[in-house]
Amino acid sequence: MILKSPESVIYPVPAALISCGAVASPNLITIAWTGTVNSTPPMCYISVRKERFSHHLISEMRQFVINLMPSTLVQEVDFCGTKTGKIFDKFKETGLTPLLCEKLDTVRVGEAIVSLECEVVEILQLGSHDMFIANIVVTHLSDSMKDNSLTGLIHEQLLGYTKGYYHHAGDPLLNYGANSLKFK
Amino acid sequence: MILKSPESVIYPVPAALISCGAVASPNLITIAWTGTVNSTPPMCYISVRKERFSHHLISEMRQFVINLMPSTLVQEVDFCGTKTGKIFDKFKETGLTPLLCEKLDTVRVGEAIVSLECEVVEILQLGSHDMFIANIVVTHLSDSMKDNSLTGLIHEQLLGYTKGYYHHAGDPLLNYGANSLKFK
Repeated sequence: MILKSPESVIYPVPAALISCGAVASPNLITIAWTGTVNSTPPMCYISVRKERFSHHLISEMRQFVINLMPSTLVQEVDFCGTKTGKIFDKFKETGLTPLLCEKLDTVRVGEAIVSLECEVVEILQLGSHDMFIANIVVTHLSDSMKDNSLTGLIHEQLLGYTKGYYHHAGDPLLNYGANSLKFK
Repeated sequence: MILKSPESVIYPVPAALISCGAVASPNLITIAWTGTVNSTPPMCYISVRKERFSHHLISEMRQFVINLMPSTLVQEVDFCGTKTGKIFDKFKETGLTPLLCEKLDTVRVGEAIVSLECEVVEILQLGSHDMFIANIVVTHLSDSMKDNSLTGLIHEQLLGYTKGYYHHAGDPLLNYGANSLKFK
């Protein structure tokens, strides 16, 4: 069937916790419209609604951090995606730990599995959302995945999002390049 | 720890099967660098290496289809991500079914759970990859998810990708906006 109005149905996507704003008054926002856009150099994007409190923080500083949180912290991630930094000090409310960045003037989240320090290179105004395209300048990994392997990232660790639900990334099915297809 | 060279580690992402090229000689390519970039109007992106055979097909026609495949077809998806359309007729090799599009001059994949017909509006040359930003002009859903609900999309249906592995989207943990965080 065809939907009467076209809609983007591209899943699963990350449930990424973005930290941004000044070190003295940082904010958090959960973003599902994110991903890698280039491998060399490493680049990514986040799309943010103009009316979100974090929008002007990121627009002005042109910096943000993508934090991938363990799925045990799904309630904290959801809180940061549904409450506004205009009213709430989200670090205080969630108990998450702001840490100084290596290269940026904002903070990263201490409990993250992965934190990517990002510098904005282009902003595209697309309609409901502005798309921030950024260079990834520092990649932090937690001790649990210090070999940068799959181990720390899947199986009850990594938080995905699909049409209104947070979920685990499930068990591996096949490795890339397995070439196990039987020709027909 | 900090990686010596920064790297994009943003997961889980979709393992999307892209159909493109002329109806008489269509091609397939599997893409993980994809996602939603705007909600209203619905817009998405795919990033494609310049040397891939599909790159010039998409550049020239400025059209492509994002097909989300059931995870039972993970071997076909992997085949299309690792073999080149210069040598292989991927529809023939995989046995997947090309269907005419509603609005585009290329094909979609009959076995897909979701097919999004996309018209390119901008191409950004970023380095290793070109980023194709597109309007989603038609959304096809399979009968198994005709209410556009979660049902057809997760639990052994939807195919995710994380650092070299295809996997299921796992069980739901929490719905968006559950606001179940206990204040600290």
